[in-house]
Amino acid sequence: MIDLRSDTATRPTPEMRRAMAGAEVGDDVFGEDPTVRRLEEETAALLGKEAALYVPSGHMSNQIAVYVSAGSGEELWAHERSHVVANEQGGTSVLARVLPRTFDAAEGHPSQELLERWAAGADDVHRARPALISLENTLTGLVVPLAEQRRVADFAHAHGMRLHLDGARLWNAAVALGVAPAEVAEGADTVSVCFSKGLGAPVGSALAGDTDTIRRARRARKLLGGGMRQAGIIAAGALHALHHHVDRLAEDHGRAARLAEAIATVPGLGAQARTNMVILEAPEGRAPELAAAVTGHGVGCVPLGPSHIRFVAHLDITDTDIDEAAKLIAAAAATLTGKNP
Amino acid sequence: MIDLRSDTATRPTPEMRRAMAGAEVGDDVFGEDPTVRRLEEETAALLGKEAALYVPSGHMSNQIAVYVSAGSGEELWAHERSHVVANEQGGTSVLARVLPRTFDAAEGHPSQELLERWAAGADDVHRARPALISLENTLTGLVVPLAEQRRVADFAHAHGMRLHLDGARLWNAAVALGVAPAEVAEGADTVSVCFSKGLGAPVGSALAGDTDTIRRARRARKLLGGGMRQAGIIAAGALHALHHHVDRLAEDHGRAARLAEAIATVPGLGAQARTNMVILEAPEGRAPELAAAVTGHGVGCVPLGPSHIRFVAHLDITDTDIDEAAKLIAAAAATLTGKNP
Amino acid sequence: MIDLRSDTATRPTPEMRRAMAGAEVGDDVFGEDPTVRRLEEETAALLGKEAALYVPSGHMSNQIAVYVSAGSGEELWAHERSHVVANEQGGTSVLARVLPRTFDAAEGHPSQELLERWAAGADDVHRARPALISLENTLTGLVVPLAEQRRVADFAHAHGMRLHLDGARLWNAAVALGVAPAEVAEGADTVSVCFSKGLGAPVGSALAGDTDTIRRARRARKLLGGGMRQAGIIAAGALHALHHHVDRLAEDHGRAARLAEAIATVPGLGAQARTNMVILEAPEGRAPELAAAVTGHGVGCVPLGPSHIRFVAHLDITDTDIDEAAKLIAAAAATLTGKNP
Amino acid sequence: MIDLRSDTATRPTPEMRRAMAGAEVGDDVFGEDPTVRRLEEETAALLGKEAALYVPSGHMSNQIAVYVSAGSGEELWAHERSHVVANEQGGTSVLARVLPRTFDAAEGHPSQELLERWAAGADDVHRARPALISLENTLTGLVVPLAEQRRVADFAHAHGMRLHLDGARLWNAAVALGVAPAEVAEGADTVSVCFSKGLGAPVGSALAGDTDTIRRARRARKLLGGGMRQAGIIAAGALHALHHHVDRLAEDHGRAARLAEAIATVPGLGAQARTNMVILEAPEGRAPELAAAVTGHGVGCVPLGPSHIRFVAHLDITDTDIDEAAKLIAAAAATLTGKNP
Repeated sequence: MIDLRSDTATRPTPEMRRAMAGAEVGDDVFGEDPTVRRLEEETAALLGKEAALYVPSGHMSNQIAVYVSAGSGEELWAHERSHVVANEQGGTSVLARVLPRTFDAAEGHPSQELLERWAAGADDVHRARPALISLENTLTGLVVPLAEQRRVADFAHAHGMRLHLDGARLWNAAVALGVAPAEVAEGADTVSVCFSKGLGAPVGSALAGDTDTIRRARRARKLLGGGMRQAGIIAAGALHALHHHVDRLAEDHGRAARLAEAIATVPGLGAQARTNMVILEAPEGRAPELAAAVTGHGVGCVPLGPSHIRFVAHLDITDTDIDEAAKLIAAAAATLTGKNP
Repeated sequence: MIDLRSDTATRPTPEMRRAMAGAEVGDDVFGEDPTVRRLEEETAALLGKEAALYVPSGHMSNQIAVYVSAGSGEELWAHERSHVVANEQGGTSVLARVLPRTFDAAEGHPSQELLERWAAGADDVHRARPALISLENTLTGLVVPLAEQRRVADFAHAHGMRLHLDGARLWNAAVALGVAPAEVAEGADTVSVCFSKGLGAPVGSALAGDTDTIRRARRARKLLGGGMRQAGIIAAGALHALHHHVDRLAEDHGRAARLAEAIATVPGLGAQARTNMVILEAPEGRAPELAAAVTGHGVGCVPLGPSHIRFVAHLDITDTDIDEAAKLIAAAAATLTGKNP
Repeated sequence: MIDLRSDTATRPTPEMRRAMAGAEVGDDVFGEDPTVRRLEEETAALLGKEAALYVPSGHMSNQIAVYVSAGSGEELWAHERSHVVANEQGGTSVLARVLPRTFDAAEGHPSQELLERWAAGADDVHRARPALISLENTLTGLVVPLAEQRRVADFAHAHGMRLHLDGARLWNAAVALGVAPAEVAEGADTVSVCFSKGLGAPVGSALAGDTDTIRRARRARKLLGGGMRQAGIIAAGALHALHHHVDRLAEDHGRAARLAEAIATVPGLGAQARTNMVILEAPEGRAPELAAAVTGHGVGCVPLGPSHIRFVAHLDITDTDIDEAAKLIAAAAATLTGKNP
Repeated sequence: MIDLRSDTATRPTPEMRRAMAGAEVGDDVFGEDPTVRRLEEETAALLGKEAALYVPSGHMSNQIAVYVSAGSGEELWAHERSHVVANEQGGTSVLARVLPRTFDAAEGHPSQELLERWAAGADDVHRARPALISLENTLTGLVVPLAEQRRVADFAHAHGMRLHLDGARLWNAAVALGVAPAEVAEGADTVSVCFSKGLGAPVGSALAGDTDTIRRARRARKLLGGGMRQAGIIAAGALHALHHHVDRLAEDHGRAARLAEAIATVPGLGAQARTNMVILEAPEGRAPELAAAVTGHGVGCVPLGPSHIRFVAHLDITDTDIDEAAKLIAAAAATLTGKNP
């Protein structure tokens, strides 16, 4: 099986395992784990924020961000496909109790017209108060232009709102844009980043922001049960990933491009590479069927709706895997030919 | 001031005041108010449901319906302009803690394709479980066809979901369609109706459904602080409204049509009558300005976004008021002529 | 049936009914009901606070007070028998999401030692932050001394906490102490009062406090569905009660004393009058049985645990009723003699 | 520093580190991590339950248990010092939204009389519905007798309630009683156990119960952000702890007894050993002062209120440490002599 379902599937490298086995640890609930502290400090510095907090998952990082940024009965604006509203089990209603208001936009960011329309009449007693905008960069692999992100940040701040950036794959955006991670995080009041996914650490994410926000986030992490004891073991894997696996994301992007090109040569299929992801375009309505066939041929993938399939390049995938996967996808597509949808 | 802002502005008639002053009462928290009981029984019968519950507002009726129909971290599907998601302060996130998922559709109901797409993959651990669909009839005056409503009800039940009907103005739909209220409520597991608004009672709404649901709703009403002591006083107004003010809604519909016709003759304006409401179409982006001018001329109205204004006919509005309002709207529109937006 | 179960059972007098029937009304959701406004202003003035808010029930008043005074995961300290924790369906966990911490104290107020012990270590990451203390005056008829209340208020404010006073029967405390209502409300940041119960209005309560708190409470009332349209109808009953039924509470207190004296002469029974309530002391463990017998003899009452029964004097109860009730209670008690528990 | 503050301070042994470094892993969010699965299966078997779920902390395990066992506005009964109500930041109000009702009892379990009194009148519309009882075993080191635990379980089940057992230190109870862990877990519908604390693993706890409950718990874990990717790394440490560190808890118990004996010889001090904990009794009100002096002398400890101090023996503490600690505690106590409190 060539597993292109997600970059969450990566396994720790031998060097990373060694780093974890030798990690210096303490009780992090009391703030006494030196490895966790180092990871938090380095992450904050990389993202240009005052402080950061290590958490068990990107899901928790996002949920804490919303919890500390918006109150019960306030509005969260986000893309309808963004992880925080579409893939976190409705947690924002359960934990922060905010009202999500979602926009759809192929380019991943809301237009100025939409922002202004939504902000109008916000003091009406019938309305939830707008409190938070969340952007995701990359969004399903798509890089949101930094100028647009800055525009949204400015709008948020001018309207007494905050901006959260779900940067689970911010590293990919930085590498694709050729800028420092801090530049991608600029303007956001809180930023989530993941050390698993593309970076290949086994467990963990971080939330970065100003000191007061992160102090409140630390309480919220405990509230949710995310306080871990000798977490330095896994934080050491995250540190190793930060030190050794960021720049190499360019290789994943190159492999995604190579796969997209190969798929595009298959009759009836289209493909677009977005950082480390490939979005295959199947004939209308046939994505689920094709995804099943591709999986049957030994290539892991995820259907996105009726006509698209996602493939993700990552640390455990080589050029050879990509070439082999391209062949298997073509073979799977061939088995569908002649069948009517 | 000719107040066409909303049918919530109606004042009780002398007959209704007499009915309230003479109402037989008891302690309704103990279920001992005979007038409240009568109102609940008659309402349930009218709507073709087993039981009903008297509550202080339509807002509370909707919120209780969601609370008893869906659990924390489950999905509520509704029109993005429906009252339950757009006009109740995000209450569904605070009280029921459901995740709203909203559709936009000029005709007020979701397409079959959308329903099926949203139901797919509902068992994914990343997703909130779909639990409840809410329709509103009328929606901003628009009658949702009963066949479409039935289609949505069938879909909901086939997928283990429930259907709530926000019938704050269900009476208008029934009168417009020439059918019994129970026919409009058919297929819905819970139905909210209001005795204020078009019916002209000063206070109160009801939630109807099966016996078990209403038993749980009664507990939820207490939880929210909606249990009232000698509520028979106001319930008597609601009963009077049910007995005397339903059929006369046809007059409001006629007056709305008359106003729409008059507005449509004003150069640059369009107008559409929907049951007791008139939606005026202003030149692009000029609705707020025109609404202010109309109000300045003595006609109460509510702007709906950049290009539309809402007028509502109701119990306290006569034919003369309508004719006068039409003249004043035309005069207000004339003051804008020549101004550039 | 002589109904001594609760002062919530009172029915509006003919004068009160006339006041309601003639009330001037408007749409209170838009703040346009003149009778509601007058009630809110008079109530605020009587309680010595900047503002007040009319709500459908004392339950809602308390819940809103907690919601606007304390945040998710903060502590509410209250007597274990106080209404806000024991009789509101756990609403403080559902709506405000605070952690109740309860004390038991025969005298109705926490000792200084307990307050200090509970405040210690409040910044521990394992602990909920103490945010609010709630007192109830009267508590099951018992007047909490104003000096103790002031001590608790001072403690709260010195520790960055707020004080809520559940004054559902504050009028009784004021009359019993011979002081103005504002004096009983002194030191509390928020105060709930009821117009039903002893004052005899059919529906409604108020929450009083500073302007900013009440502005937020108004939003919270809407959130809970407590915004009512032409609420002036019932507010007129409340105003009538405020004007005519406060001083007369002394009569209820006199009748409670008269009933307690009579009960105390019955062999095997004890009785204590507390403002308008009588707490009958039954032989150990026999209260439920005796309460059933008393009810069977035509006197409404409520058992409080295994050995106590509550009787409440109110507007609809005369001296004759009291004397008759005393006889019936004695007769009921006699039927139990000779039976073994 | 001889760190006797808590058994959470233990550091992984070299063997445990090796086990973690070599762990076979997969993506546990997709249920594909073989080490996590093995840990869950072995834990379930050890506890005599159908299934178990690995989570980042005991705090999360408890919170999930409450979330899946009781609904919004239902009652949770627990000891007032139990972790789930006293040390989890009020999480039960924020996440499960239950109303805690707490008892105090030196022996750690509620009397039958209290249970029956609390269950009476549970269907009153003013009351939260009793849904869950939580016991903790050990509770601050105290073993709750299994017969009492069974009595509470029987009561719960007879009244339609569930029993949760916070067994963060269940292993200590089992070793102290000389019974299998499953025997301690008997009767409980859900059980939390920790692999950190006495067992010495760096991270993680588990919740065990029947298959359906654990399936719902798995969803809730994701909701709270507790789903981790290649968690096998830390699960391997937990497995190692299960295999090698349970029986050795008897050594910690022996060391606690040895320390308690030594302390009891110091004039003015008392001490009681409870499994792996020692509760030092200081002169009235002087515990904080003494704890500071003891810490100053190089022995980590935790004051419990005004007159008690807790010391905990664990994996990283040797006989020599204990003897040295005893001397330092005596020296610290001597510095207080002659000072007036």
